[in-house]
Amino acid sequence: MPYINIQITREGASREQKAQLIRGATDLVVQVLGKNPATTFVVIEEVDTDHWGIAGETVTVLRERARQGGAQ
Amino acid sequence: MPYINIQITREGASREQKAQLIRGATDLVVQVLGKNPATTFVVIEEVDTDHWGIAGETVTVLRERARQGGAQ
Amino acid sequence: MPYINIQITREGASREQKAQLIRGATDLVVQVLGKNPATTFVVIEEVDTDHWGIAGETVTVLRERARQGGAQ
Amino acid sequence: MPYINIQITREGASREQKAQLIRGATDLVVQVLGKNPATTFVVIEEVDTDHWGIAGETVTVLRERARQGGAQ
Amino acid sequence: MPYINIQITREGASREQKAQLIRGATDLVVQVLGKNPATTFVVIEEVDTDHWGIAGETVTVLRERARQGGAQ
Amino acid sequence: MPYINIQITREGASREQKAQLIRGATDLVVQVLGKNPATTFVVIEEVDTDHWGIAGETVTVLRERARQGGAQ
Repeated sequence: MPYINIQITREGASREQKAQLIRGATDLVVQVLGKNPATTFVVIEEVDTDHWGIAGETVTVLRERARQGGAQ
Repeated sequence: MPYINIQITREGASREQKAQLIRGATDLVVQVLGKNPATTFVVIEEVDTDHWGIAGETVTVLRERARQGGAQ
Repeated sequence: MPYINIQITREGASREQKAQLIRGATDLVVQVLGKNPATTFVVIEEVDTDHWGIAGETVTVLRERARQGGAQ
Repeated sequence: MPYINIQITREGASREQKAQLIRGATDLVVQVLGKNPATTFVVIEEVDTDHWGIAGETVTVLRERARQGGAQ
Repeated sequence: MPYINIQITREGASREQKAQLIRGATDLVVQVLGKNPATTFVVIEEVDTDHWGIAGETVTVLRERARQGGAQ
Repeated sequence: MPYINIQITREGASREQKAQLIRGATDLVVQVLGKNPATTFVVIEEVDTDHWGIAGETVTVLRERARQGGAQ
């Protein structure tokens, strides 16, 4: 009876990609741990790039900087 | 000082129903554990049916299939 | 298919009290939202009083102060 | 490699304030624990006042009551 | 920069199985969404069977009942 | 009424360091957002290095490799 929470930035993941995440994460716990898929939940949360920080900066700022020049 | 997080699919829960969830969850920890309601938080998160998976499929697909025929 | 996460400080809740929390939280979403209990998860997390802060202080310190005199 | 999740009610926090939260939370774990900022995530979640309860009532109701007269 | 939280009951998953969950969940977001593995976190939480409820009962009770007779 | 959850690997953070995290995170939301400290919760979760993955590997393995020679 696993519960899997996947948090990603909101940057255009498609409905099909989200369905793939749900399928893949479910398969993972079924295959690795022998869990019952019927009681496996996967919840995806999309987070605004203004709301996600890494290294003290928002992903919005990091993406902007990457676009303007340097490497990722 | 409990913190209670309730995740449900976004399928039309009304404002009054959400208020009932908050009241009910608070009463529960007050009655069972003797907690102080003044420091009891309840946070409800509504999740798109495309973002919630069970048995490897999105709730969107499961609801669609249920509508088209079979049992739940 | 709700998922309910209940965080409480680790201060001696009994096995029976935890079972009551699980029953009560499940009943709540069944009664208020008509959810299916078979796909309702409740997860309880007990948190050390050194790991829970309120008003900028650990619950350990708050409990100690309450014991030594003051109200609350 | 800390992960910090900050949940606040959605009541008009600005983009700059959110950036300050991200900077401040990152600095905190760097200074207190010597963590590497490059692997420090901060995720902010804004929660509707109808979805946040305290003392068994929604923040919407608490704010309304405060406006109508009494103390906070 | 995904963050993936996997909650499972504490029922003897081995260190190698946990390493497989981490590898598999990371691969999933890399393959489906093209995410950078260097900024992909996976956090596993093991939950006591007394602390996990399904259908209003603890997993401890459900396991006990399954052992004593019935299917599932 | 913020709720702040800080997840770190279990690698010897002291009681005093945890108290500093609680103080610092509370001060942050008070100063940046004007929140009331009395209704600000901070919850720290320590996660085993076997349970935290980054770049598809456990922190246990990453720490071991760092000790044995390489950079980082």
